Amino acid sequence: MTFAEKIAAVRAELAKQDLDGFLVPRSDEHLGEYVPPSAERLAWLTGFTGSAGLAVVLTDQAAVWSDGRYVLQLAHETDERIWTRLHVTENPPPAWVAEKAGQGARIGYDPWLISEEGVARFTDAGLTMIAVAANPVDLAWKDRPAPPMAKIRPHALAVAGVSSLEKREQIGRKLTEEKQEVAVLTDPASIAWLLNIRGQDLEFAPFALGFALLHADGGVEFFAEPEKISDDTRESLGNSVAIAPRAALPDAIAGLKGRRVRLDHAGAPAWFAQRLREAGATIVPGTDPCALPKACKNPVEQQGARDAQKRDAVALCRFLHWLTDAAGHETELSAAAQLLKFRGQIEGFAGESFAAIAGAGEHGAIIHYHATAQTNRAINPNEVFLIDSGGQYPDGTTDVTRTIWTGPDAPPHELRDQFTRVLKGHIAIATLVFPEKTAGVQIDALARQYLWHAGLDYDHGTGHGVGSFLSVHEGPVSISTHLRPATLAEGMILSNEPGYYRIGHYGIRLENLLLVQKAETESKKQFFQFETLTLAPFDRRLIDLALLSTQERAWLDLYHERVLQQVGPALPGEARSWLERACAPLGIA
Amino acid sequence: MTFAEKIAAVRAELAKQDLDGFLVPRSDEHLGEYVPPSAERLAWLTGFTGSAGLAVVLTDQAAVWSDGRYVLQLAHETDERIWTRLHVTENPPPAWVAEKAGQGARIGYDPWLISEEGVARFTDAGLTMIAVAANPVDLAWKDRPAPPMAKIRPHALAVAGVSSLEKREQIGRKLTEEKQEVAVLTDPASIAWLLNIRGQDLEFAPFALGFALLHADGGVEFFAEPEKISDDTRESLGNSVAIAPRAALPDAIAGLKGRRVRLDHAGAPAWFAQRLREAGATIVPGTDPCALPKACKNPVEQQGARDAQKRDAVALCRFLHWLTDAAGHETELSAAAQLLKFRGQIEGFAGESFAAIAGAGEHGAIIHYHATAQTNRAINPNEVFLIDSGGQYPDGTTDVTRTIWTGPDAPPHELRDQFTRVLKGHIAIATLVFPEKTAGVQIDALARQYLWHAGLDYDHGTGHGVGSFLSVHEGPVSISTHLRPATLAEGMILSNEPGYYRIGHYGIRLENLLLVQKAETESKKQFFQFETLTLAPFDRRLIDLALLSTQERAWLDLYHERVLQQVGPALPGEARSWLERACAPLGIA
Repeated sequence: MTFAEKIAAVRAELAKQDLDGFLVPRSDEHLGEYVPPSAERLAWLTGFTGSAGLAVVLTDQAAVWSDGRYVLQLAHETDERIWTRLHVTENPPPAWVAEKAGQGARIGYDPWLISEEGVARFTDAGLTMIAVAANPVDLAWKDRPAPPMAKIRPHALAVAGVSSLEKREQIGRKLTEEKQEVAVLTDPASIAWLLNIRGQDLEFAPFALGFALLHADGGVEFFAEPEKISDDTRESLGNSVAIAPRAALPDAIAGLKGRRVRLDHAGAPAWFAQRLREAGATIVPGTDPCALPKACKNPVEQQGARDAQKRDAVALCRFLHWLTDAAGHETELSAAAQLLKFRGQIEGFAGESFAAIAGAGEHGAIIHYHATAQTNRAINPNEVFLIDSGGQYPDGTTDVTRTIWTGPDAPPHELRDQFTRVLKGHIAIATLVFPEKTAGVQIDALARQYLWHAGLDYDHGTGHGVGSFLSVHEGPVSISTHLRPATLAEGMILSNEPGYYRIGHYGIRLENLLLVQKAETESKKQFFQFETLTLAPFDRRLIDLALLSTQERAWLDLYHERVLQQVGPALPGEARSWLERACAPLGIA
Repeated sequence: MTFAEKIAAVRAELAKQDLDGFLVPRSDEHLGEYVPPSAERLAWLTGFTGSAGLAVVLTDQAAVWSDGRYVLQLAHETDERIWTRLHVTENPPPAWVAEKAGQGARIGYDPWLISEEGVARFTDAGLTMIAVAANPVDLAWKDRPAPPMAKIRPHALAVAGVSSLEKREQIGRKLTEEKQEVAVLTDPASIAWLLNIRGQDLEFAPFALGFALLHADGGVEFFAEPEKISDDTRESLGNSVAIAPRAALPDAIAGLKGRRVRLDHAGAPAWFAQRLREAGATIVPGTDPCALPKACKNPVEQQGARDAQKRDAVALCRFLHWLTDAAGHETELSAAAQLLKFRGQIEGFAGESFAAIAGAGEHGAIIHYHATAQTNRAINPNEVFLIDSGGQYPDGTTDVTRTIWTGPDAPPHELRDQFTRVLKGHIAIATLVFPEKTAGVQIDALARQYLWHAGLDYDHGTGHGVGSFLSVHEGPVSISTHLRPATLAEGMILSNEPGYYRIGHYGIRLENLLLVQKAETESKKQFFQFETLTLAPFDRRLIDLALLSTQERAWLDLYHERVLQQVGPALPGEARSWLERACAPLGIA
């Protein structure tokens, strides 16, 4: 089908359902970041393959939105004769739809693919929002792939650290304290953490798509196709976890009549609130009760993260050594493949934690660049090469970015100035001591201050939470300009990745993962500090030593010494010699 | 009446009105910081005189709340046999009332003294909230003072910078753009700014208590007793401002049937929303439309602020010189009186902008300390003296804090370490460059980072907005840990006042006022920087030079040079010689 035929088919269905329009968000039924091919409705309908977006089909026009990261990609991938291409904050969809379709227009949505809060923004704009029983896109999409059916495996206690039963009882007690009887879990990462299981329904996130109801007594109803569940998983789950097919969910919700049910209106599909109300349950608004305990890694997970990072660093350091000889005869794709090859040799490697971003020269300035056969570019001498990548291991998830000067000439002064400002911001976060109850937004500017002073900035967050053999992007805390109330707490793993992007020329990003640890002070208040987990040298040729303070230089030397100590012994001879030079005290060689 | 008699009288009235309880907040009908004696209901009923608090009288028990600043004062001023004394965040009032009075209990409130959002917190806790027609406290309070009736005077265009008509038309256009016909103004500071008038109904804030309706055509209905308005004010207001007594307000609201009326549900008394609904008006929720333009000072106001600060600095520098000889024979009260005497000699001085905080030794650690005859303490040699004060001038409002070592011996090392960490934080804010759309919460930690590193912190914001011959505390922006969405913009005046408090020993606070200015960069994005307005030396004896970076030392030397240049010529001989020594480059005598 052509894109014109697809939208015509959707419009024919709208006419049948008496609708003036229909929303097609880029989400699946879990409203998360990664979706399986069977849920790529937005890409099927519009051609746009970015990770965030929304299309609206009206009877006589249609628009598709994304954010600043995807402006170019949106224009490139969609047909302007069919789609008006818009920026989500500059032209918010509710106002656009209300203007084009008119006040009171009947706009359909699939209640599985948008939250109640999301629907409310359209209702507030004066639209009549209709939850459809049959999604017009699904009716038109004849060759839609089947949903993933990968096996679900147990996540061993040796890496999980705490048994599922203990987690469930602990959260169950919290529900009781807050006078809730049941919590609806729609985030597969929360279910994976709670049940100590892992799946492979998605390419980069090792969890299984499914839903769960957690009862205050610790019992769980887990809705996932029974044939996905291996025998050892079934055994590990025990008697207090009832497994039922996804199709049993409506009846289970209907059975909650009279119960007090915790539901996240921002995170859960609107379907749940609508069905709970129909069932006569009392909805108690509340965030996902697993989100915070999942983010605060227990001591076993913390040690697992250290171990996984240390092994992962062997692959990355071998790659960085390999890269010293790459300029002139390797490409972005061949470099990414080489890194994947090195990671494949690491014990426990279970796949990439996201599609590696390997950007040479001007491609490094595209924050979410992914090299394809069409865009692939040689790695040339005397330019900047940015590599952002990560791996999944049973004991931890990694995410690391390094920015390299390919040489052989010395890099220009301006580049070194910018790189060093990014590095100073990175060190400001890495060395920070901060009190309990500090939100990420409070510390974000520490990473930006040296760039700001030169009129520079970067248009992304400074850091995101990272899961434990789960999603590389994990809530509830981030280090960013967003006014999120969640605060940093012991055991959280966060990225520290300031950057600078000179559009059309190069990108700089320096990313390590950090672990929040208690700091010893004389104060009655609890203070925290970060332990840097990631181990890889920063490119010394790009550092302007004159811009570093004594303390910053000391931190770098100490960090490099640690990298050499921990990673060096595991490297083959030539790579080890290279690492010794890369980690020598600054100002030497 | 004794406090026991007072609460008995209120309870008798509750019985008559069939209520299970009644809220007595420390607010007047404008829900602001300063209230006239006629509105000091909380102090009358409980004895508690702090600037923030709430009492709840139930039939058989009663409680009074305040925040961390006032824990000691609350315990000291109220009778524990009558009042349970509670901390507002540790024991939130709605939950306490719901527990003690029971679900569904009928709790009365005066709709003039609490916002709709405030009432909603009690309703959400399961209470039946009843707006009373007659306030039980007012009925019991026989010798209640009359409301203030001070004259209202024009605020000259030479200091206001923009005519009232121009302001009204500008905001009127904004209302039209946002499809609003009328805005309700309940903040007297907004009305003073909008109408270019000033009053003296309150001790420290030069505005007149009143209400206004701003129409989209720029016309205003101003509700204030006509006898308060001087002839020249009436003339300055012109034909498009209709003056009516406060008693005419209910009819005016009733006349808004069918109109789209902008109202701030958090800032306006609940009375307005309730009456607007009764009248059949459409309420459009929105913040006070004057708040942002009032905060962004125009060029005339900016120059006025510079001029006022420069004159005010003469009084402060004379005082700091006077203080060099005070230890051993002066007190907190005599020092505050001396400073007021010096300010009284400054051209245009119209009174203090708040009650000066003069804290010697351990009193400096009480953040909102006010010396009284009972607490007054000698200023001793070899201790810390903290003085936080400000003045009102037609061209600007000042607010400045200095922390002084009384000598003659050298201060202890620990104190110098802490003082220098506070100073480094102050300089980090003063020298910051930051992009547009930066919220205060994003930069607050820059002021705290050096204290945090030593396990220290301060339990107040880093900075607040300051009015232009208006309230010394002004919204919508602050530099603090609060997640407020308002962002810093050109022309805003903010305080920069990090501190450290060693309870039982001393307090340190270093406060200057800052003006947000555009910064020149090569970026397409607009960047801002701060111009420091306040002019007074920091006590060099308390600075540990070894802790300062080269840049910090350079900033201090340049700042002191500017202080000497701008203030020195206006000082009498001895004070000028002292200032020369106080402002000499660091490291020199």
